Amino acid sequence: MIFTARQIAGILNGTVEGNPDALVSTVSKIEEGVSGSLSFLANPKYTEYIYTTKASAVIVGKDFKPLQHLNTTLIRVDDAYQSFAKLLEYYNKLNKNKQGREEPNNVSPSAKIGSDVYIGAFVYIGENAEIANSVKLYPGTYIGDNVKVGANSTLFQGVKVYHGCVIGNDCTVHAGVVIGGDGFGFAPNAENNYAKVPQIGNVVIEDRVEIGANTTIDRATLGSTIIRKGVKLDNLIQIAHNVEIGENTVIAAQTGIAGSTKIGKNCMIGGQVGIIGHLSIGDSVMIAAQSGIGGNLKDGEIVQGSPAFGVGEYKRSYVVFRKLPELNAKIAELEKKLNETIDRRP
Amino acid sequence: MIFTARQIAGILNGTVEGNPDALVSTVSKIEEGVSGSLSFLANPKYTEYIYTTKASAVIVGKDFKPLQHLNTTLIRVDDAYQSFAKLLEYYNKLNKNKQGREEPNNVSPSAKIGSDVYIGAFVYIGENAEIANSVKLYPGTYIGDNVKVGANSTLFQGVKVYHGCVIGNDCTVHAGVVIGGDGFGFAPNAENNYAKVPQIGNVVIEDRVEIGANTTIDRATLGSTIIRKGVKLDNLIQIAHNVEIGENTVIAAQTGIAGSTKIGKNCMIGGQVGIIGHLSIGDSVMIAAQSGIGGNLKDGEIVQGSPAFGVGEYKRSYVVFRKLPELNAKIAELEKKLNETIDRRP
Amino acid sequence: MIFTARQIAGILNGTVEGNPDALVSTVSKIEEGVSGSLSFLANPKYTEYIYTTKASAVIVGKDFKPLQHLNTTLIRVDDAYQSFAKLLEYYNKLNKNKQGREEPNNVSPSAKIGSDVYIGAFVYIGENAEIANSVKLYPGTYIGDNVKVGANSTLFQGVKVYHGCVIGNDCTVHAGVVIGGDGFGFAPNAENNYAKVPQIGNVVIEDRVEIGANTTIDRATLGSTIIRKGVKLDNLIQIAHNVEIGENTVIAAQTGIAGSTKIGKNCMIGGQVGIIGHLSIGDSVMIAAQSGIGGNLKDGEIVQGSPAFGVGEYKRSYVVFRKLPELNAKIAELEKKLNETIDRRP
Repeated sequence: MIFTARQIAGILNGTVEGNPDALVSTVSKIEEGVSGSLSFLANPKYTEYIYTTKASAVIVGKDFKPLQHLNTTLIRVDDAYQSFAKLLEYYNKLNKNKQGREEPNNVSPSAKIGSDVYIGAFVYIGENAEIANSVKLYPGTYIGDNVKVGANSTLFQGVKVYHGCVIGNDCTVHAGVVIGGDGFGFAPNAENNYAKVPQIGNVVIEDRVEIGANTTIDRATLGSTIIRKGVKLDNLIQIAHNVEIGENTVIAAQTGIAGSTKIGKNCMIGGQVGIIGHLSIGDSVMIAAQSGIGGNLKDGEIVQGSPAFGVGEYKRSYVVFRKLPELNAKIAELEKKLNETIDRRP
Repeated sequence: MIFTARQIAGILNGTVEGNPDALVSTVSKIEEGVSGSLSFLANPKYTEYIYTTKASAVIVGKDFKPLQHLNTTLIRVDDAYQSFAKLLEYYNKLNKNKQGREEPNNVSPSAKIGSDVYIGAFVYIGENAEIANSVKLYPGTYIGDNVKVGANSTLFQGVKVYHGCVIGNDCTVHAGVVIGGDGFGFAPNAENNYAKVPQIGNVVIEDRVEIGANTTIDRATLGSTIIRKGVKLDNLIQIAHNVEIGENTVIAAQTGIAGSTKIGKNCMIGGQVGIIGHLSIGDSVMIAAQSGIGGNLKDGEIVQGSPAFGVGEYKRSYVVFRKLPELNAKIAELEKKLNETIDRRP
Repeated sequence: MIFTARQIAGILNGTVEGNPDALVSTVSKIEEGVSGSLSFLANPKYTEYIYTTKASAVIVGKDFKPLQHLNTTLIRVDDAYQSFAKLLEYYNKLNKNKQGREEPNNVSPSAKIGSDVYIGAFVYIGENAEIANSVKLYPGTYIGDNVKVGANSTLFQGVKVYHGCVIGNDCTVHAGVVIGGDGFGFAPNAENNYAKVPQIGNVVIEDRVEIGANTTIDRATLGSTIIRKGVKLDNLIQIAHNVEIGENTVIAAQTGIAGSTKIGKNCMIGGQVGIIGHLSIGDSVMIAAQSGIGGNLKDGEIVQGSPAFGVGEYKRSYVVFRKLPELNAKIAELEKKLNETIDRRP
């Protein structure tokens, strides 16, 4: 889509200085501006770039006073950053404003489909599934039997939801995510091999959850694996059977949480963290990247290491770890000196 | 599906106490029972819940004697746990009892398809592929040219099997798994960039293997990457080219095994473990989560750490690691004291 | 496909010794040869196997002189290894020589499709997408609106490319890869939950890049996430928003790189490495597997550990770490001895 500076000023309730017919078709950082891009200046640190930017238009605050000649068109608004964010939101929605039903698809006649639902090509919707209003199912999404997807949720291309799982309202699930695969439950039997424990629970994802690409969330053995309201999961995360993650907890990429562990709300968990099963992690816990959690954690703990302990202590231990060879040499020297001292005693 | 307590008693060869028409449509843990759910009581630790559970029916052993009033219907059987497990198995099969051929699909005329095969919508089956009896291919599965899938195996939605790979009987492959992608083989050339080494081997998966969601198994450069009978792989695991994993070995999520490493049978490998290439890992080896394996391991070794060594030694070293700052201070103090002692010598 | 030894000699410009009608339908290592397979002998270390191999034909150099009776047919060439590699390349191309357009597919009328493009079944191509000549899109590939794919690139089954992303020439993208998902950007708001930061940049992948199965590359918040020419990414890697990876850098499986980090060219990064955001990693850096990178690295640094430091120092520290319990005991002993010495002073 192409807009003129005048149109953008109209959307943002701002005013144009320069060429009102300047055309923009994309957005850029001010220091990376190209012809046809729209940028913004909010942080004074970047002011110098406005005199050299190749962006065709720049959103600025009403107080901005140019000190040199400008080659770009200005769009003046009350708050440059907020206006730009608003525009991004608008632009983003235009890009993701898919509607209607594309062919071919395979939707069970017994499924209930709300109004304003986007069903992309190659979407599969199983028996008795319920898709609420304004849901977007991108091409290749698989919705198993008896699955429920709440209003305004978007499932991107190739998301796979096994039978009986529930997704809340206003969720965003990125491409390749798998929800509801069997948990990793096997009981050793007499012949020294493993019999599968049937996994008949489901996954419940509450409202406003976002899940990153290719993340996997296993169904519960019995009951539900639960992802509470407002949780944000990054890409390639593994959530095992019967895990529960509390409200507004944020987890970075490639972290894995083993079976039946319960995590509190408002936690921040770094990337590549491993948490063993059957633990209880409190609220507002912070876990450094690559840590291994082998025991329960209380509200507000901040930990690091594998196994993890207090982040300050970890850092102090690690400082000494780095100079262990010196320390080792010093101990040998001390030993030698001490023995000499003892030997020389009269 | 909805069952009455009487019907369930019939399936389990048990007897009803209470309302034989009580309706159940799901199962639950006894402490999480809701109206319409069926539960069971096997562990005496949970006996207290039977008096307050909201489950509509509970399976109990023939010796259970209620000490208070019950609001739920009892189904008496010889062994409550085994009966419940049997029922789960039955319920599970009902849920996964897909049959027939859904449209649209794309099956090569040269492919051989056995009897009782489920071919979901958007399934692709390449030239000369062989799909044995009672295989289930869920929607969106991709079966490349010349692939063989053995009897009774289930490939869930969106599994992708590259050309020439072989899957045995009674396997379960979860959504998003990729089997037979090219191994990571590149030879640096004169221009300081990398030429690809052609990867023309395949992947062979033997019988009774289960593979978790979004796991990737690369084809061999030459020969086969082999997953032996009864192996269980969790989600998001990486198996590189020419790896071989022995019978009944179990590997937890997000572990990665580099090229040409051979792993013995009956091993237990934790989550997020990394194993470098060209190693030989013995039988019945146990590797703690997040460990890094940089050398061969003998039968029965139990290791931890990155790089890993004996699990007991690792734990003892780690105890000292945690108090390294104190140790460091103590050494400084010893040094000072010793120097004073030496200085004060007459 | 089945070839005679004579046909292969023809392709390789070699000569046959033995049965020119020997049939081969696959290739194998010489020590794993089976009837119907073709092998090669280049490394003298493997010479012994030529007398026992069951391969139906073996490519050998013109100087090879058998010292025992041979059961296999020889194909003599100038350079056995190069000839075999050439043959592999040829064989590989035959296997991946897909052409034409399979049904059903969903290609936007506004998309521009070059010549000799393979469009597999269930492929989706969005509005205004541009697919250059000789591109191969395997079944189930998703190409979003305004995406560009350069000449001779292959996207295997189920690759998902979000709107607006750009893939260069001669790239290979393996099954299940997700390109252009939203970056993990959330700003905490007053209600203690997270508002999404719109992610409106894209991903740009330059020429000759290879990306392993189920790897995920997030789009930039603004601007582009960039993968430079010749980069090789293994399976299950996470590349966050606004990351830039320099030319010919090679990254092993399950490594994760957080937002806005820039990595130089010709780096070698091991598996399961974690690199935090906003860092600058120089050229020709080497990072050991499972390392955690928490600070900038200069050209040519070689590091290990979590957090990482010089690889030699890490190894020396780790040697002492392994004997920390002894060291701890020795310090206690020294302390005791020293105290005794002090006490005994006259």
